[in-house]
Amino acid sequence: MAALPDRVSARAGIVVTGTEVLTGRVTDRNGPWLSERLRELGVDHAYTLVVGDRREDMDEALRFLAGRGVDVVVTSGGLGPTADDLTAEVVGAFAGRPMVLDDALEERIAEILRPLLSRWPDLDPEAIRVSNRKQAVVPEGATILEPVGTAPGLVVPVDGGPTIVVLPGPPRELHAMWPAAVATEAFRAAVTGAVELRQEMLRLFGIPESEIAETLRLAEDAHGLEGLEITTCLRRGEVEVVTRFSPAAAEVYQRFVETVRARHADTLFSDDGRTVDEQVADELRSRGLTIATAESCTGGLLAARLTELAGSSDYVLGGLVVYANEAKTALAGVDPALIERVGAVSIEVAEALADGARARLGADVGVGITGVAGPGGGTEAKPVGLVCISVAAAGGRLTRSMNLPGGRADVRDRSTTVAMHLVRRLLVGETAPGDDARTSAASGAA
Amino acid sequence: MAALPDRVSARAGIVVTGTEVLTGRVTDRNGPWLSERLRELGVDHAYTLVVGDRREDMDEALRFLAGRGVDVVVTSGGLGPTADDLTAEVVGAFAGRPMVLDDALEERIAEILRPLLSRWPDLDPEAIRVSNRKQAVVPEGATILEPVGTAPGLVVPVDGGPTIVVLPGPPRELHAMWPAAVATEAFRAAVTGAVELRQEMLRLFGIPESEIAETLRLAEDAHGLEGLEITTCLRRGEVEVVTRFSPAAAEVYQRFVETVRARHADTLFSDDGRTVDEQVADELRSRGLTIATAESCTGGLLAARLTELAGSSDYVLGGLVVYANEAKTALAGVDPALIERVGAVSIEVAEALADGARARLGADVGVGITGVAGPGGGTEAKPVGLVCISVAAAGGRLTRSMNLPGGRADVRDRSTTVAMHLVRRLLVGETAPGDDARTSAASGAA
Repeated sequence: MAALPDRVSARAGIVVTGTEVLTGRVTDRNGPWLSERLRELGVDHAYTLVVGDRREDMDEALRFLAGRGVDVVVTSGGLGPTADDLTAEVVGAFAGRPMVLDDALEERIAEILRPLLSRWPDLDPEAIRVSNRKQAVVPEGATILEPVGTAPGLVVPVDGGPTIVVLPGPPRELHAMWPAAVATEAFRAAVTGAVELRQEMLRLFGIPESEIAETLRLAEDAHGLEGLEITTCLRRGEVEVVTRFSPAAAEVYQRFVETVRARHADTLFSDDGRTVDEQVADELRSRGLTIATAESCTGGLLAARLTELAGSSDYVLGGLVVYANEAKTALAGVDPALIERVGAVSIEVAEALADGARARLGADVGVGITGVAGPGGGTEAKPVGLVCISVAAAGGRLTRSMNLPGGRADVRDRSTTVAMHLVRRLLVGETAPGDDARTSAASGAA
Repeated sequence: MAALPDRVSARAGIVVTGTEVLTGRVTDRNGPWLSERLRELGVDHAYTLVVGDRREDMDEALRFLAGRGVDVVVTSGGLGPTADDLTAEVVGAFAGRPMVLDDALEERIAEILRPLLSRWPDLDPEAIRVSNRKQAVVPEGATILEPVGTAPGLVVPVDGGPTIVVLPGPPRELHAMWPAAVATEAFRAAVTGAVELRQEMLRLFGIPESEIAETLRLAEDAHGLEGLEITTCLRRGEVEVVTRFSPAAAEVYQRFVETVRARHADTLFSDDGRTVDEQVADELRSRGLTIATAESCTGGLLAARLTELAGSSDYVLGGLVVYANEAKTALAGVDPALIERVGAVSIEVAEALADGARARLGADVGVGITGVAGPGGGTEAKPVGLVCISVAAAGGRLTRSMNLPGGRADVRDRSTTVAMHLVRRLLVGETAPGDDARTSAASGAA
């Protein structure tokens, strides 16, 4: 969309190191987390480079970012005790600073290790100390960030280049160390001139992304989108429209939001950044309602998602994972004759599961999910991807049956998203095309 | 560790586009997936660059990789219908190829859209067609990869530079399109000379990473590690040791494995690439045993993890999510007086949950988990991170109590890993230091 002014802000790059991340055995959570922190500081994050534990590849990544004129580089990983952990050394060489052993730091690391090692009484403490000595060898003149685990972080200024913030790979350590990195003089000097960049998000559910493209064109024609950087993406079945803009463009953004709201009133469910998970949590908590689940194909994923948020014990009572048909009957009270007649994957069984979850856990809201997650188990009448979901409460219920695309993990994950939206709609009294909304016999009686 | 020969193989870089990925709203699954596919072809993947939907940043990423002499660049994302989807255009400009409308392709995309649009009968088909026309504008001379969704992929040769494979962002579409990309003449020509690179993995549970560092030094001294590229990482509480090597170094690798096995017999649980999840599945299936869960703090995550593998209905009967104490009693039969006496987070309640899961679902193996996931709810005696897990079967049980580090998500996830290892150890008849192993009254009676 319309581009941002050329240089609103300090710029940053992120280098994520580790062959395990490059090759996908470990999912990088640090790049995204650091990106968000940099944005909060008004620093424009332009690139993330993922490189393996190879000296020359890490060096090239630093050179690339320095060549693009970034003010700050943040690295994660490669500070461990094994020989493939090279980051401090590579950054030192890049900055033209010799590596020196910091005796006091070595002593502090040894202090940290002592209690940890008591868990493994068989280990030779001296051998461990040698392993960890290398973590106390740092580029001369670097500011040391105190270890959270055993690895210290570093802030390393580069003459005529970016300031490099070197952080450990474990997210917990990286998070805890970040405030200290931001507080260093070298970091503050590097990001001078950063201008606040706002970011707002609209979330829609139940329309194709191409519809948004049309809306963007209309908004551009009607009143322009000058100063807004708009990106749209599909995530877990939802369309997210994210806009970044400097405060001067706030009015342009408001006009854009009004255009989206006018065209997509029925599918725009969030304009304040809240996820559907947070909306469901807020609705349940503010109304003093409780919820329970009975899941077949999702195998507990919806209960896990509902309990992901801190404080969810305020409204989640629990759930039933009823993978086997016998469990559907024994735990959720589904009539075996019903399963026999209409099959385990059916609207009727989804409704019975929702009712069973409510009844067995004494919850205000019950959710039932049954489907064919695949890859096996599909038939012509009930193919892989067919999922039936029902949400029941005292006032009524919403049920829908749908064919979800993708593999086993996609079908399971998407099912939880649809279920969340059904819960939300039932709570706020909305319906969407395809919802079967009615007061059922079971819930009417409650 | 010891480096690989300088250039065993064709080299590749990956460019993941999308502001949503750069800023972490969406987790990239394409980089890791493509990395694995390239490795299988013997192509050495050196860099992944993540860039936002900005023309100049994408162009710089391509220039960087071309400058590093890679033979192939694979891009993912940026092929959608909205104006922020720029990849085809940027790659065309980089390759010096003008963009041309492919009429036949436009027609095929329209054909694909027709049935999809019937789901949204209110939409104007002509407006949608305009939105999608841009997906049929491609660099002159590019090989077109047929759309899986609505976006075609591209293979674009660059004079004196790498061949660029342009793939859509949705993983399902990218996966389905990959074989066609690999089959193109331009791709095959670019990767000529690729040499098979083997990759093997050892997995250990219950030791610190620094112990492995010591083992690596000993192995290096004893017999050398020439030709092995060894990386170690911590993942979900396990230590993974991954080694890449050309077939000529197979014997060196075998000696290395023997050294690890000799030093870490009690913690090395996998040397054939199988995860603990797969081992548990194999053990249950081959013995004809069933499993059921009763989870408090993990809220269904363990049940979801057990049912993640296709075919898990062979051995997973289901589970109980007993978040509220009332649910622990009503669903899992935990004596409320016991909870009153020792607290919900206790060895005793974990054992009662495991027994309750077995009894209520009629399963051979029951798993009970209770703990303080945080951030609230911790006390001095029972701090955040305290988790008690018990696994019960007819022959006996294994129970342990531990303090897990990290935030709410870490504690919940790590709990499922510990539970998986307890199930595995109970099934294969091993114990680890800290396991409380005994024949309990409840299971002894079964």
